[in-house]
Amino acid sequence: MWKPDRQSKKPLYEQIADHLEQRISYGEFPPGSLLPSERKLAEQLGVNRSTVILAFAELRSLGIIESRSGSGTRVSQYKWGATPKHTPNWKRYAEGGSFLPNVPFLRRIREALNQNPTLVDFASGELSADLAPMDEIASLMRGHHYTSYLGYDNPQGYTPLRQALEKYLVKYRDIQTTESSILITSGSQQSLFLITQCLLSPGDAVAIEDPSYCYSLPMFQSAGLRLFRLPVDRDGVQPEEIRNLYKKHRIKMIFTNPNFQNPTGTVLNDERRNKLLEIAAELGLPIVEDDPYSLTDYAGVPRPPLKSMDTTGSIIYIGSFSKIAASGLRIGWMVAPNSIVERLADARQQMDFGLSVIPQQVAGQFLKSEHFEPHLDRLRMQLLYKRDLLIEALQKELPDLIQFNIPQGGHHLWCKLVPAVNDAKLLEESIKNGVVFVPGSVYGSDSGFVRFTFARAKAEDIGPGIAGFAKALRELIH
Amino acid sequence: MWKPDRQSKKPLYEQIADHLEQRISYGEFPPGSLLPSERKLAEQLGVNRSTVILAFAELRSLGIIESRSGSGTRVSQYKWGATPKHTPNWKRYAEGGSFLPNVPFLRRIREALNQNPTLVDFASGELSADLAPMDEIASLMRGHHYTSYLGYDNPQGYTPLRQALEKYLVKYRDIQTTESSILITSGSQQSLFLITQCLLSPGDAVAIEDPSYCYSLPMFQSAGLRLFRLPVDRDGVQPEEIRNLYKKHRIKMIFTNPNFQNPTGTVLNDERRNKLLEIAAELGLPIVEDDPYSLTDYAGVPRPPLKSMDTTGSIIYIGSFSKIAASGLRIGWMVAPNSIVERLADARQQMDFGLSVIPQQVAGQFLKSEHFEPHLDRLRMQLLYKRDLLIEALQKELPDLIQFNIPQGGHHLWCKLVPAVNDAKLLEESIKNGVVFVPGSVYGSDSGFVRFTFARAKAEDIGPGIAGFAKALRELIH
Repeated sequence: MWKPDRQSKKPLYEQIADHLEQRISYGEFPPGSLLPSERKLAEQLGVNRSTVILAFAELRSLGIIESRSGSGTRVSQYKWGATPKHTPNWKRYAEGGSFLPNVPFLRRIREALNQNPTLVDFASGELSADLAPMDEIASLMRGHHYTSYLGYDNPQGYTPLRQALEKYLVKYRDIQTTESSILITSGSQQSLFLITQCLLSPGDAVAIEDPSYCYSLPMFQSAGLRLFRLPVDRDGVQPEEIRNLYKKHRIKMIFTNPNFQNPTGTVLNDERRNKLLEIAAELGLPIVEDDPYSLTDYAGVPRPPLKSMDTTGSIIYIGSFSKIAASGLRIGWMVAPNSIVERLADARQQMDFGLSVIPQQVAGQFLKSEHFEPHLDRLRMQLLYKRDLLIEALQKELPDLIQFNIPQGGHHLWCKLVPAVNDAKLLEESIKNGVVFVPGSVYGSDSGFVRFTFARAKAEDIGPGIAGFAKALRELIH
Repeated sequence: MWKPDRQSKKPLYEQIADHLEQRISYGEFPPGSLLPSERKLAEQLGVNRSTVILAFAELRSLGIIESRSGSGTRVSQYKWGATPKHTPNWKRYAEGGSFLPNVPFLRRIREALNQNPTLVDFASGELSADLAPMDEIASLMRGHHYTSYLGYDNPQGYTPLRQALEKYLVKYRDIQTTESSILITSGSQQSLFLITQCLLSPGDAVAIEDPSYCYSLPMFQSAGLRLFRLPVDRDGVQPEEIRNLYKKHRIKMIFTNPNFQNPTGTVLNDERRNKLLEIAAELGLPIVEDDPYSLTDYAGVPRPPLKSMDTTGSIIYIGSFSKIAASGLRIGWMVAPNSIVERLADARQQMDFGLSVIPQQVAGQFLKSEHFEPHLDRLRMQLLYKRDLLIEALQKELPDLIQFNIPQGGHHLWCKLVPAVNDAKLLEESIKNGVVFVPGSVYGSDSGFVRFTFARAKAEDIGPGIAGFAKALRELIH
């Protein structure tokens, strides 16, 4: 992102005016379009708001922009010559499509992190840089020739990676399958996108856990699905609820995350697993099992997935490297019946023509390498260490204002706030105090819950981050 | 793909029966689901159909599968135990979603290429392996450290790649822009997918070229768009047609590929470029300009894009590495007004959480490297050489049965067949003769046209491939 040069003799406001004029003349802000607000620009460029006000005044005097009180600052319609030509009404197009924008809280968090990368990040659901196997992957990349083929890939994904996953799934997830049942995707997000777009129709009812990651995904709404809740308690969901939902709403699919559920960290107990499978088989209902966290099990003995008990072929299984290795590889996978894999592979070709072969080659090598197991061992220890740092900090800063169950795996701690506070105000106050988290309502909960991700923040930032959060919370309740 | 072991003492049919039983028991083919036909399995496994018939008989005698005449072979409902449990009706799910499957001709071509990789491929719109800069990219990958960051990427794409593209666009495409107006995508396909999903609504009318690549993309139909035709002649589209379409159908967007159009290879002439921009500005209509081929201009002086003349901010510009470097990198880009880039970046996060950073790093390094220009020079020469081989072969084999204009850039030769033949029969006959092409009707044309891609086939295969095609054509007209 461009920033003004503080060493230059040219005043900051002039530099900013020139920069904006350039972006306007290049078409980034066409005639009639709204410029970012003075506040937002000041944040982005790291200057005082008064400097932006001066820059805007400069552009206004040149006839390049116009401000009207209450409606912000726009690029002048007449900027590009005497004859007013019609620029498309881009705003209408940006708002016109059927695919929905992200939930406002998540956009606000992303914006805050973009503007201030020093915020302590308890929001992003991924590993910190030091937990990713960067050196291991770098050494694999130096040692192998990854460019023997750079054409369009097999629609199901790179075959040697699917072969490596076939072995991985038997060894680590107790899932028997063959490469022809595996679809490589750009992470769990794309797996879920393909399922909601291609296997369900607008108006279809589906059951999702409450709270659940799925609520944070506008893709469920964009696909026109009706969402029904399966409440999660300490032992996961109550399978009997499914029968009721089926009777009332004819639900067509069940989405579940049985191991270290996002956001609650709970594990579905064995009795409920059997019951869930029994009811799904009885009703002929497919289950989508999202399983990103199992290998982070701090005890080092990952619980098997539901899929390993699936004798009726009812489960589409989703896995990924994002939470156990590196989200930036963008490698996930799905195990599903043949007809489903073929359908989704075909649709994905239409959407993006498949994945780059290079990260698939890297991921396949990493899976087969001697680095994989030591990486997992180290990851588990580090996550456990960070979990404990987080709990310690919370117990120190907010002993009586917060409640939680202690997760035995995964990236997240799900907390209930004892005092009643407004989600939006708490987030804004926290940002001011140098920390972001995800308000529980994003996952479909009532307000008064918070998801802290301890995988992403640096260990040394966890204490100060929670101190900032505690300050924000105490500010609001006093 | 698994193949039976011809060295084994175990008969082929028994190996196949065991293999199928395994895949069935793993859930790839759940109870009640249809198995591939005997013909298809025989092709896939490289055995006689009678071997598959024996394997099926074996499985039938074990009660694992059931055949009914006319409805194919299915996995037995009772396979998994005495109590019949209900497996989801996966077939209904596979057919249920709103996103449409690929056009049948393209699925048939892909299937044929999967089953017989020795077919001469005049169908796939990409470079042959020897035209991709594999050694150059391998040397860049050995020399750089690509793993300094492996987390989720900036939603608009990796910033250093956007900075490299900013320079590239000025130098090679005469487009002034800034990194903040650039969105990195997984190739032009994803750019078009995002535009059709997020900026248009079901029922919207759009203008596309006739013939055009867009007709081959079910994403246009999946988005519920109404497509109207702009006929392409030797000099591209006739812009005046746009006014008529706007009056009659209130079209909301124009899709065009002005340089070396896919499939016709034509270049929009200067007079029409001016007129097109004038009419779009007059009507306030956005243009989506797809520009994958310009840098292949055989004369070495790439024609500028429409976007370089866009003074009203009417154009969304789409570029890609797929046709000039390597489709397997899956790197494309879009230049658009700020509101559009932000909207599409946000939506893409929902669909796949962004691209892998590794190929973006590689692409950025390649663009800035000393390899880029020599690669382009070599590419142009090689494409010209292959174009001439194709023309020579056609003139030798089918001097009086085929007509075409000679393209000055791009990957494709668009041919009119003089005799009337059925598209589907010609394709099947050609597959039998060892060659695939794309029937013109895939691009919205009447039958009697063929697109030959000369970029993909090896130089030495072009002559024999056309001989196979000529044999197929002559067979059908006699």
